[in-house]
Amino acid sequence: MPSNPSAGGVGELFQLLRDGVPRTRAELAKASGLARSTVAARVDELMDRGLIRPVADAASTGGRPPSQFALNPSAKVVIGVDIGASHTTVAVSDLAGTILAEQTGQMEVARGPEAVLGWAVETGASLVRSLDLSRDRVAAVGVGVPGPVEHPTGRPVNPPIMPGWDRFDVPGWVQQHVEVPVLVDNDVNISALGERAFAWPNIDHLMFVKVGTGIGAGIISHGQLLRGAQGTAGDIGHVRVARSADVPCPCGNRGCLEALASGPAIARELASRGFPASNGGDVVELVKQGNLEAIQAVRQAGRDLGEVLTTSVSLLNPSLIVIGGAMARVGEHLIAGVREVVYTRTTPLASEHLTIAQSVTAGRAAVLGAAMLAVEHALSPDVLPQSFALSS
Amino acid sequence: MPSNPSAGGVGELFQLLRDGVPRTRAELAKASGLARSTVAARVDELMDRGLIRPVADAASTGGRPPSQFALNPSAKVVIGVDIGASHTTVAVSDLAGTILAEQTGQMEVARGPEAVLGWAVETGASLVRSLDLSRDRVAAVGVGVPGPVEHPTGRPVNPPIMPGWDRFDVPGWVQQHVEVPVLVDNDVNISALGERAFAWPNIDHLMFVKVGTGIGAGIISHGQLLRGAQGTAGDIGHVRVARSADVPCPCGNRGCLEALASGPAIARELASRGFPASNGGDVVELVKQGNLEAIQAVRQAGRDLGEVLTTSVSLLNPSLIVIGGAMARVGEHLIAGVREVVYTRTTPLASEHLTIAQSVTAGRAAVLGAAMLAVEHALSPDVLPQSFALSS
Repeated sequence: MPSNPSAGGVGELFQLLRDGVPRTRAELAKASGLARSTVAARVDELMDRGLIRPVADAASTGGRPPSQFALNPSAKVVIGVDIGASHTTVAVSDLAGTILAEQTGQMEVARGPEAVLGWAVETGASLVRSLDLSRDRVAAVGVGVPGPVEHPTGRPVNPPIMPGWDRFDVPGWVQQHVEVPVLVDNDVNISALGERAFAWPNIDHLMFVKVGTGIGAGIISHGQLLRGAQGTAGDIGHVRVARSADVPCPCGNRGCLEALASGPAIARELASRGFPASNGGDVVELVKQGNLEAIQAVRQAGRDLGEVLTTSVSLLNPSLIVIGGAMARVGEHLIAGVREVVYTRTTPLASEHLTIAQSVTAGRAAVLGAAMLAVEHALSPDVLPQSFALSS
Repeated sequence: MPSNPSAGGVGELFQLLRDGVPRTRAELAKASGLARSTVAARVDELMDRGLIRPVADAASTGGRPPSQFALNPSAKVVIGVDIGASHTTVAVSDLAGTILAEQTGQMEVARGPEAVLGWAVETGASLVRSLDLSRDRVAAVGVGVPGPVEHPTGRPVNPPIMPGWDRFDVPGWVQQHVEVPVLVDNDVNISALGERAFAWPNIDHLMFVKVGTGIGAGIISHGQLLRGAQGTAGDIGHVRVARSADVPCPCGNRGCLEALASGPAIARELASRGFPASNGGDVVELVKQGNLEAIQAVRQAGRDLGEVLTTSVSLLNPSLIVIGGAMARVGEHLIAGVREVVYTRTTPLASEHLTIAQSVTAGRAAVLGAAMLAVEHALSPDVLPQSFALSS
């Protein structure tokens, strides 16, 4: 059957191997769309690096059985760092994304980059030692920060809750202590990577929506993070929604999604009606106690979010939307509101195969994603020779 | 300076060469992020195919001057086909995207795939002959259709204005007559490719918005067309806008952008006030005559469109939005409305470097894009060996 050919990339080959399933060169060529000669050269390259290994041959099909290869997940480890407003988590993962060791520390991001990154570097080194691994087994470091990041340089740009971090050279600072490639991205983007790797590895078009103190989305399209021209793609917190267009938002505009549907916004509304709520955590508690007005407020927040996600579905045509963040702890009511609006408003073709689900990584999407950011880099042979060299 | 490494693809190498500027292997390695050995192998491969050629050496820098390479635009040609509701345009282009010959015919898409594609194939062959080229110089065919396309197979899916085309195997049918790869996509997607190639070759994040009988967007992100899980990405015509949420839309919902801001929608509104307008062309005429109410209606349509584009900017962070389609002929008023809303509502970081411009391809974006779709395929060596073989 003739097909509409699409441009396959070399990275696809290693995405294929990452699941640990052994494959032959011919299978890799077919599934990736790469030329057999290209596949053969890449396989040799990855073998030389020890990143993949030969496995028991496939059953003979009459001729000589072809050799199979699979990822060697323990060839290297990576360090993932999730920097939050008040806590930082550091994890060591193998190349399959399995967390081998993890530690969370109370660490205000407002203490500035050197304090926070210093703690993260020290904790990472200590976790690697605790695993009886030498430092040269670390292939890369992934870092997630709670703010926008200029992608080509890995520097935070005007991050509202990160005093002292504006344009700080995160990769450069970390590389003074750990001489490997350092990848930096914002926490919602890497949460999308983490949730996908952990729960939805075969989904190529998804949005991870974090609803907590703020609201933001990480978008994966055609299997790749979508960052946009300045790295602000997915910044949906300040999209205007129809309800209460007069509610002021700290951004200077009115009627923003974040001013209506974030944890603090729902708490404000409930407090104005006399309920004991000053933040998102209080809202979650009220909902867990079965407070009807809290449940209704969360559901309405879901509808407001659903309004923005409806437009997102039209624009991006994802097959999965995952709702995460602190407010996902009352996920069923939030998601009910989202579904109510999205399934009413989107076109049949876009919603027919659309799943809207609660995050299953229980707050760990970002640290998993930070590790995946590092793994993806470690397994992209095209960029290895250049970027493993630290001078430029 | 340490940098945040990004995964460079092999395709990038040939994107670099496509501008015709001669480059050395070292320059290609540096600009693409590929290993020098990879670049050397790819250069050899493209030389063998005749797609690139050596050019006069760079000025000596003391040692032996390195060899330079550039695209050989006349090595092959491609055929681009833009199928519209009532007309079809066929063009022959070289590998630089320069149109060498072009013909437009009156051809209702409703006559069905065999009639329309048959005419296109015949016209393409006749244009190739008129250029004194043999058939084997044709490297690929790109086809744009006015409806959603299932990307992996190139088949239209439930196209509302294309009776008889649902799930028709467009690549398979065309390949019975022209034995080269056939790429199919919807007309708005390929318009984004065409506008970019013609006017904005260095912009990697852009939206092309077509405003005519319908409203749709083609999205390029990180230099690639964004299609989504079912190929419906950019389908913004049925997003709900705040104004007149009760206006019914043929899709079954109310308040859709298309029901308010498309050419026929503006015409309906003007007709209800007694002006002689039955379609978008009449609206354009009224505006050109300086009719104040028509101007105001077009500007309001721009504001409605701007509302949806504001959300698009938050989600996608493009650096360019191009407004095209039949209503772009009164572009200044339409764009004024778009700008009014987008620049009021988007965050500073997303709008600081955002350009909103009128299409400059004057209705030819789609045929240029159909040719580019074919050129991009012809210049992607990774997929050549597999997809140039027709059997599978």
